Amino acid sequence: MDEFALIKQYFASVGHRRGVDIGVGDDAAVISARSAESWVVATDTLVAGVHFPESEPADAIGYRAVAVNVSDLAAMAAQPRYCTLALTVPNGDPAWFELFIQGFTEAAEAGDLALIGGDTTRGPMSISITVIGSGDPAMLTRRSDAAVGDELLVSGCLGDAAAGLTLLLGDGSPSVHAERLVQRFRRPPNRVALAAAVAALTGAAIDVSDGLVADAGHIAAASQLAIDIDANRIPLSADLLAVYERDAALSLALTGGDDYELLVTAPSAAVGALQNAGFTSIGRCLAGSGVTVNGKALVGADGYKHFGHATG
Amino acid sequence: MDEFALIKQYFASVGHRRGVDIGVGDDAAVISARSAESWVVATDTLVAGVHFPESEPADAIGYRAVAVNVSDLAAMAAQPRYCTLALTVPNGDPAWFELFIQGFTEAAEAGDLALIGGDTTRGPMSISITVIGSGDPAMLTRRSDAAVGDELLVSGCLGDAAAGLTLLLGDGSPSVHAERLVQRFRRPPNRVALAAAVAALTGAAIDVSDGLVADAGHIAAASQLAIDIDANRIPLSADLLAVYERDAALSLALTGGDDYELLVTAPSAAVGALQNAGFTSIGRCLAGSGVTVNGKALVGADGYKHFGHATG
Repeated sequence: MDEFALIKQYFASVGHRRGVDIGVGDDAAVISARSAESWVVATDTLVAGVHFPESEPADAIGYRAVAVNVSDLAAMAAQPRYCTLALTVPNGDPAWFELFIQGFTEAAEAGDLALIGGDTTRGPMSISITVIGSGDPAMLTRRSDAAVGDELLVSGCLGDAAAGLTLLLGDGSPSVHAERLVQRFRRPPNRVALAAAVAALTGAAIDVSDGLVADAGHIAAASQLAIDIDANRIPLSADLLAVYERDAALSLALTGGDDYELLVTAPSAAVGALQNAGFTSIGRCLAGSGVTVNGKALVGADGYKHFGHATG
Repeated sequence: MDEFALIKQYFASVGHRRGVDIGVGDDAAVISARSAESWVVATDTLVAGVHFPESEPADAIGYRAVAVNVSDLAAMAAQPRYCTLALTVPNGDPAWFELFIQGFTEAAEAGDLALIGGDTTRGPMSISITVIGSGDPAMLTRRSDAAVGDELLVSGCLGDAAAGLTLLLGDGSPSVHAERLVQRFRRPPNRVALAAAVAALTGAAIDVSDGLVADAGHIAAASQLAIDIDANRIPLSADLLAVYERDAALSLALTGGDDYELLVTAPSAAVGALQNAGFTSIGRCLAGSGVTVNGKALVGADGYKHFGHATG
């Protein structure tokens, strides 16, 4: 049996679900259109050695590949529905693949995402996933919907994932705090339900993937305004502060990526409700352009730099 | 300016079109659902050194990446509408990218496909495209719809693309015939209109990507029947026969891949109309299982083998 046959078998066995007329196994999948909703589509590729260390366990790779795509749908306040998986691997090692699919499936089930199409290819490892979600077009949250006077708020804590990646790459002595930070990199949070719950309250929304300053910059550019971040209000986890000095932790929170928390803007009247939902107010939208931290521009803080460059 | 900035600029400048509420540039694209139709989704990845030689011109890579995905929609008799492009390249060489996008755009326009999302990543070169089409669910052509007694028909000629790839990899002296075969590899045909025109006449349908015997085998397996191919009736082009002896040409037609012609089954009553539309009858569906050629099983004819293995 061809070493890729196992992978094909897996794809063929993926169950159908409501709305999927034809799943994996034909030339294309067919899904039923719903009249009142719009479809929301996003695609993200993770390349070994660029977006994650090649040494990562396969289940962590599979989980993360799904979760970062689900995060794009959460950032639009859309409901995840379907995904396709284009998997490129150097060989068809069944043990690797089974572990990969375990993580993939766990994240897909957590994200309520049905796999409807797959393509497996031999080559340098990369995972490209396209997610299709649905949502009421009037409730989808765009980057361009911030207004001058809005506050900037973020869910959860920032900096943990970038710290976890740093710890993964280094040889720091393991601790329970370090292990939790590594898990924050490997298992991005699912903010779909939170995004849906607050969509009516928020202006612009984005997920923090490139880093706080960079992603706030995306909102500022799309909404044609300026954003000032109050560094002292950025939520930092106890785990992060147990491993890093406050200045280093803050730097990770400002410019590290991979947190996949929601970054939103909202008028003052909605801030109380957002705080009750778990958001922290960390800044404000102003007339102008660009992003400042405590009123000053950060030098060289243009966001997440991939930690390695493949030389394909 | 970051070398990838040009690529991002391109994606940001992609025009909107009817049905696209949010295109490239937000966390996800938003497309309007249509009530009466189903969505048809397919994904295909092309890896340099596996699916095409690394030395291929960038416009040929871009064109082919789109065309093979459009072909999956044609095989379902669906109308192409939207696509996402996940592009992984070793560096952001503007000249390469401009040429790539030229080929990509040409094929997308020929396929009536709007680019709604893109992700560009540094890494070993690969192109993963997800296409979304639409169609009347009752008219979509599945692999499983062949019936015993149906004839097997194919559009166009077979073997040209596999010959073109062989010529690309070799150092054979160039001729006008060889050049046309190479173009058949680089520019897969668009069979969308043809597929739509004959969808009411056909049973099963698939596109010839793995090779005639292998793809007939997919129909046979999905439809739970046997298929016998009459080798003498397989259409071979004058260009192919100018470069290869008949036996070699036939072997390429039977087991070479990449033709992206339509392979369909149809009851005898529909064969005349299909022949008028450009199809050639090349076999028949029988009770049983598997694929035979002139009544005999081909040994080792399990279809397209990628010409190279990347060692990522």
